[in-house]
Amino acid sequence: MANSDKKMVEQITSMDEDFAKWYTDIVKKADLIDYSSVKGCMIIRPYGYAIWENIQKLLDKKFKETGHENVYMPMFIPESLLNKEKDHVEGFAPEVAWVTMGGSERLTERLCVRPTSETLFCEHYANIIRSYRDLPKLYNQWCSVVRWEKTTRPFLRSREFLWQEGHTMHATAQEAEEETLRMLNVYADFFENDLGMPVIKGRKTDKEKFAGALATYTVEALMHDGKALQGGTSHNFGDGFAKAFDIQYLDKDNQLKYCNQTSWGVSTRIIGGIIMTHGDNNGLVLPPAVAPIQVVIIPVQQHKEGVLEAAEKLKARLSDKVRVKIDDSDNSPGWKFAEYEMKGVPLRIEIGPRDIESNQCVVVRRDNREKLFVSLDNIESVIEEQMQVLTKALYEKALENRTKRTYTATDLDSFIKIANEKSGYIKAMWCEELECELKLKELADVTSRCMPMEQEQISDRCICCGKPAKKLVYWGKAY
Amino acid sequence: MANSDKKMVEQITSMDEDFAKWYTDIVKKADLIDYSSVKGCMIIRPYGYAIWENIQKLLDKKFKETGHENVYMPMFIPESLLNKEKDHVEGFAPEVAWVTMGGSERLTERLCVRPTSETLFCEHYANIIRSYRDLPKLYNQWCSVVRWEKTTRPFLRSREFLWQEGHTMHATAQEAEEETLRMLNVYADFFENDLGMPVIKGRKTDKEKFAGALATYTVEALMHDGKALQGGTSHNFGDGFAKAFDIQYLDKDNQLKYCNQTSWGVSTRIIGGIIMTHGDNNGLVLPPAVAPIQVVIIPVQQHKEGVLEAAEKLKARLSDKVRVKIDDSDNSPGWKFAEYEMKGVPLRIEIGPRDIESNQCVVVRRDNREKLFVSLDNIESVIEEQMQVLTKALYEKALENRTKRTYTATDLDSFIKIANEKSGYIKAMWCEELECELKLKELADVTSRCMPMEQEQISDRCICCGKPAKKLVYWGKAY
Repeated sequence: MANSDKKMVEQITSMDEDFAKWYTDIVKKADLIDYSSVKGCMIIRPYGYAIWENIQKLLDKKFKETGHENVYMPMFIPESLLNKEKDHVEGFAPEVAWVTMGGSERLTERLCVRPTSETLFCEHYANIIRSYRDLPKLYNQWCSVVRWEKTTRPFLRSREFLWQEGHTMHATAQEAEEETLRMLNVYADFFENDLGMPVIKGRKTDKEKFAGALATYTVEALMHDGKALQGGTSHNFGDGFAKAFDIQYLDKDNQLKYCNQTSWGVSTRIIGGIIMTHGDNNGLVLPPAVAPIQVVIIPVQQHKEGVLEAAEKLKARLSDKVRVKIDDSDNSPGWKFAEYEMKGVPLRIEIGPRDIESNQCVVVRRDNREKLFVSLDNIESVIEEQMQVLTKALYEKALENRTKRTYTATDLDSFIKIANEKSGYIKAMWCEELECELKLKELADVTSRCMPMEQEQISDRCICCGKPAKKLVYWGKAY
Repeated sequence: MANSDKKMVEQITSMDEDFAKWYTDIVKKADLIDYSSVKGCMIIRPYGYAIWENIQKLLDKKFKETGHENVYMPMFIPESLLNKEKDHVEGFAPEVAWVTMGGSERLTERLCVRPTSETLFCEHYANIIRSYRDLPKLYNQWCSVVRWEKTTRPFLRSREFLWQEGHTMHATAQEAEEETLRMLNVYADFFENDLGMPVIKGRKTDKEKFAGALATYTVEALMHDGKALQGGTSHNFGDGFAKAFDIQYLDKDNQLKYCNQTSWGVSTRIIGGIIMTHGDNNGLVLPPAVAPIQVVIIPVQQHKEGVLEAAEKLKARLSDKVRVKIDDSDNSPGWKFAEYEMKGVPLRIEIGPRDIESNQCVVVRRDNREKLFVSLDNIESVIEEQMQVLTKALYEKALENRTKRTYTATDLDSFIKIANEKSGYIKAMWCEELECELKLKELADVTSRCMPMEQEQISDRCICCGKPAKKLVYWGKAY
């Protein structure tokens, strides 16, 4: 590698030296975002937005396959509407942006920019649901939302972010619970199989649940540095909002009944999660399912006869199966290698005069730089196979990191010691009392990440108070 | 048709009786929108949103084919940023929504919710453009924008609406002008070939152009009632914003030069345009390209053996070519006919026992209710053909309406008489003076719709002042 090529790579801070700085370097150097004079918000640049578009396409397909329809609600919520559900407004009011003027006139009622749209969906559902025949209603929307955060970081915590929010209404409590778990599983499947990110499915404690929800379920991922990231959440509201908004339906038995409700969402946070799960000191590593460029073809000695033609031919053969690009710019191959490694392109194909002579090309994986010499005869199938292999390898590596960083504690002293000395999940039993949850936060600076669906009884006693244990909890520090 | 079926149809006001009421009836009865407590904003319901998704897919493909990339900018604009370009702020400041509080704190600088994003794009471009190698920059974003309108109507004029805004930067004035016209042509092609809506391509007068633009081009469509609708606009900014935002690049000749800029957009207004161009007294009529359901299959005597199976088989055969749905609900065929006519589904297939016996089905066009008896052997090709035929028929019908409603005036008295007695375009010559434009507004209550690209010299004199004519203008009343 030439000196100038090296220089570009060296511009990223090493992740072992300063993980936060490494992260910020990547989002900038891989051209994912830019800052602007709008404090706390980000510009999502073409390469970053293309990742989001791919996430949208994959999830939207899954939502539609499970019977959901997209809608669009207003971006504003009148204060009186936000105030209708007590827990909800208490949870969100402190962090909303308020519109108080329209043109030069002061509004008679201020409007918040939606932090989430339960109240708007509820008002609409109250309008359109009459009978059991109208149920279930399975709506979703893709939009941006605003939460007035004090400290922000690109993708992870931003005053405005892009997301989808599903909002559904059901006849019975059981159907609502089924929907809540169905969508949790849709998320888990997406994280694990498309993004190569292992997740723990679990339920949030009452302290950590969504404002106004009966139960919040979550998929939790562990980042490279051992901090947890809430990947997506799915909430069962029971009939709490339905009562506040008077959403009733006439059932088959001619009785008026309250609807049961869910909501569920994932956001551009996912992109932050991908970076911190798979990225390395050479830059981004993208799972093929969401990579804007899945394969980059780098012609070697491209001025020599036949090289560019061979590269073009290769591109043409691959282009209806994968998102492929040729870089035939004047930059050196070494510069290009570094550039597309920084951008996390999953597979690189090198093709030069000698390759052409022997009817082959070189396929290099982004994750481990493994080189394969592949006959041009069956390049299509090799590329498709290698994308799967790579996704699986990303998953295995992330799972290995999580396994390595998952600790178990059965007494308070070792719990605190692990929390102080290690970074990762601590599995420990809990009595279900808020007091103990708060105390663990105070003593060990951790929060409950979730009560996993797959419960184990690793001890009979609460890690904190010693009273009978009720739940296994994953504890940790989170983004 | 049974009485109960008729009743549903009769619920729409006749378009000849009250066009405005007819329009509002359709947007509600075809389940396109709903109102909420958020004044001046609309809820776009699943059926309406699916139309928008189809519009997005078609246009996004055209944008990407012409080299554009999608990005996402913050939804807020700090007041000082909005103020940077004088004409622009004067045009937009009176109609923006202002955020003045974040949580419980008053902001030190108020933020407007974007009415359009030129200023944000400019700030970003100033950050990322250095040399001629960085040009052109061809960005687009899909988002919602807010303009604090006093009187609102679903899709046509709403405080919040969905749109796309392209923003591009070029090295030379010529390239910017080429881009402006390229995108105008993309819009014209979309309106005419996908939506079956004839448009007049033209340039706006200085009075009607976009705040801050050098030149605004437009595609203007004529609605069924003879009022015009601005379908999409494409603006050439020259280097006005570039100078205000200091967007310079180092050219090949080593000189620093200002960039030349364009922007162009279409919005959910298009849906209003489709309704008012193609709709009739039975409801919506959708061009197949954007119809959420292109073909609805209605089983006749569906309880009889083999009918539902035949309908399902038909659906399976069509479903990878068109968006097809079966309605096998308990409602009567007559009720279903009326329902899908209201929803504007382009083609209806009826299939019953006798059809099955003779290996055929009945295909009914939404626009003219023409019935075709089609052999099941080649139903796929007939359906594909009929969708094209229907789009062309919609276009022809709309063109006929426009031709019928296009008047020519060469003296002021007849101009005023036409404006008072007729509804449509008036073609008349103009001297290019603002005074005459204002006077025609005062005397005849019309505005200049555009100066068409295809100029004719229908008279030597300005229709208003009698001075030498410079431009042919289409005048009219507009939505």
